[in-house]
Amino acid sequence: METVASKSCADLAEAGREFYRRGWVLGTSGNFSKLLARDPMRISITASGLEKGQLDATSFIEIDDNADIVHGFGKPSAETSIHLTIYRTIQNVGSVLHTHSVWGTILSDKYFESGAIEIEGYEMLKGLSGVTTHEHTEIVPVIANSQDYIELAEVIERVINEHPNIHGIYLHRHGLYTWGETVSEARRHIEIFEFLFEVLGRQLRTA
Amino acid sequence: METVASKSCADLAEAGREFYRRGWVLGTSGNFSKLLARDPMRISITASGLEKGQLDATSFIEIDDNADIVHGFGKPSAETSIHLTIYRTIQNVGSVLHTHSVWGTILSDKYFESGAIEIEGYEMLKGLSGVTTHEHTEIVPVIANSQDYIELAEVIERVINEHPNIHGIYLHRHGLYTWGETVSEARRHIEIFEFLFEVLGRQLRTA
Amino acid sequence: METVASKSCADLAEAGREFYRRGWVLGTSGNFSKLLARDPMRISITASGLEKGQLDATSFIEIDDNADIVHGFGKPSAETSIHLTIYRTIQNVGSVLHTHSVWGTILSDKYFESGAIEIEGYEMLKGLSGVTTHEHTEIVPVIANSQDYIELAEVIERVINEHPNIHGIYLHRHGLYTWGETVSEARRHIEIFEFLFEVLGRQLRTA
Amino acid sequence: METVASKSCADLAEAGREFYRRGWVLGTSGNFSKLLARDPMRISITASGLEKGQLDATSFIEIDDNADIVHGFGKPSAETSIHLTIYRTIQNVGSVLHTHSVWGTILSDKYFESGAIEIEGYEMLKGLSGVTTHEHTEIVPVIANSQDYIELAEVIERVINEHPNIHGIYLHRHGLYTWGETVSEARRHIEIFEFLFEVLGRQLRTA
Repeated sequence: METVASKSCADLAEAGREFYRRGWVLGTSGNFSKLLARDPMRISITASGLEKGQLDATSFIEIDDNADIVHGFGKPSAETSIHLTIYRTIQNVGSVLHTHSVWGTILSDKYFESGAIEIEGYEMLKGLSGVTTHEHTEIVPVIANSQDYIELAEVIERVINEHPNIHGIYLHRHGLYTWGETVSEARRHIEIFEFLFEVLGRQLRTA
Repeated sequence: METVASKSCADLAEAGREFYRRGWVLGTSGNFSKLLARDPMRISITASGLEKGQLDATSFIEIDDNADIVHGFGKPSAETSIHLTIYRTIQNVGSVLHTHSVWGTILSDKYFESGAIEIEGYEMLKGLSGVTTHEHTEIVPVIANSQDYIELAEVIERVINEHPNIHGIYLHRHGLYTWGETVSEARRHIEIFEFLFEVLGRQLRTA
Repeated sequence: METVASKSCADLAEAGREFYRRGWVLGTSGNFSKLLARDPMRISITASGLEKGQLDATSFIEIDDNADIVHGFGKPSAETSIHLTIYRTIQNVGSVLHTHSVWGTILSDKYFESGAIEIEGYEMLKGLSGVTTHEHTEIVPVIANSQDYIELAEVIERVINEHPNIHGIYLHRHGLYTWGETVSEARRHIEIFEFLFEVLGRQLRTA
Repeated sequence: METVASKSCADLAEAGREFYRRGWVLGTSGNFSKLLARDPMRISITASGLEKGQLDATSFIEIDDNADIVHGFGKPSAETSIHLTIYRTIQNVGSVLHTHSVWGTILSDKYFESGAIEIEGYEMLKGLSGVTTHEHTEIVPVIANSQDYIELAEVIERVINEHPNIHGIYLHRHGLYTWGETVSEARRHIEIFEFLFEVLGRQLRTA
């Protein structure tokens, strides 16, 4: 049974256009979703292969827990299973956003061996939900990339369960997954992570 | 008693949208204020938690010297006490702006131990109020970040009194506070500092 | 005999304005074309010397296989022969785009001696037509720049025949040529290459 | 006697807004002019102290050969004497543009001792008027900054006479002066130089 949650994806579309402008979803990369109902699960997600600078209300399809299309036209992204896994695994998640940035890609390479990007001591960390001081260490696990999205979704579920306080996961040389209770919160998390990735990335070379 | 000073915050909102576009107030970071009256003190300041790319005339609240809301809806930022301290400590300040940039954050880390970012010999320094030649040394004190904003405000008051000619203060790994007689002047100061921070930051690595 | 293919160049003009915004076609550099008919060949291409941030439907001329103007006003770019060669040499190409970027220029210098920029292991590679996994090595041949465009066109034909699976060629210290079945695909290829060039370029200095 | 040359400064205003967007004239820095008549000399130039992102047709004043205002309101920039000197010294100059960029500032520091930024072997050099091959060496003299604009104008006149084929001059840690027969050509020269400064600046650190 569907809830009365708004199905409008204007907020997702606007976030996507802004991320495109900043160069975080070039070349049709990235995908964005929001939860419409939890039981049975319904989400709206970007159709595959769209230019993210052109997103509007028609760019989204509504799918169920099996990634079958309930409303709309297009093909769900191959990464839809990852979105669904995140909604199932974390309580209260209302939106999942996935971007590909230059600095994130570089950091994921630098910290792939050690297993995580660690970010500590920055005021901007307070932009992450529940973080109330800069004296916080945020762990962003970096996991191996794969074209087997079912396997990848399982790894992500396990990583989230091992690190219940994280706000995002990085796929090695691929991109960031983050989430929030609302689209607005998830968008803020993208911006906070991308800011901090750039700070860390540029500091790699000031040593 | 209120003066007849314009309460319109269109200029603050426009500055904020531009700073967002440049990546200096990502993820709802930053806050902006202007003085409405000095005695009793009234200022307009951004409500807490807003996306700075979306600021408009409704994004501001009017507060008094105790940070109590006089007009408008929302929550004052936790950093309001810093704004009020700056208005109280420096004569003729009409606007206070606070941003979080990548290069500023990096420089604040580099110069935290030495206590200040020093900028010398650039024509752009003439964009700072009262500076008439590039042969000028601008001191930007870097002070320890804290979540105790009352204490932070006291430190800032002391630093300003020790350095009466400065145009800005950097909170370590946090962000820049600058000010001006008008919103326009304060905005110019932000742009001048951010330009010079990028020049200095990039030169760290050309040595 | 002309086909019924759309002659509208709105998509090329929009791509060009966006590339200008990103700094990939500054100072009237770059040129963009689409195929109208293959036999006899007709293409639309940007007239020479235009500011790419101002492109609109009037910015294009229609030329035949000899680069003679069939419709429109202006001068074909000196690089028109390269566009024609690419349409002749690769089956199914519907659009050819040429940009000049900072990171591409730097990489072309770094890898000129070795003969090619090699890109391997990035998810973004999947944005290139026919690439289905990040476990792919993309070769971007770097060839010597020349002002003899006839000779350059011959070199490009030979390089394409030697490397039938490539998606682009770099002229040393000059710029990128890429192509696609549609304007949309060619534009995606530009964005993918520019993203990856920036990642590789920035990593040169993190070693 | 005035010529019938267009007095509209829409093209200068648009160039200025675009340069602001790119971060080349932050904080009210920079100034732009065009020639209205050569004998007696009349030029339109930006009034001093304006935000360059807000330029429109009202942002310019018309001055004579003594920098006295003939039409319009505002104060001529202190650097007006440099503009007038360039119009007097170089035949056919119709527009003079002055910007302050991060990469230009860094390069001017790096090459101040040697006296010039030398740029050689890039296709983008062909965007400079009269340059027909990438096999060209462009000299951009770097001269000491000064607040004595009369003296600075004399130095610039001498440097131009010594290097009659240059397209621009850099004031050390200050900014670029370039020119062209038209606003459009001068704007193209700014974009070409800024592109090449970024390429050279970034390569300083790939060595």
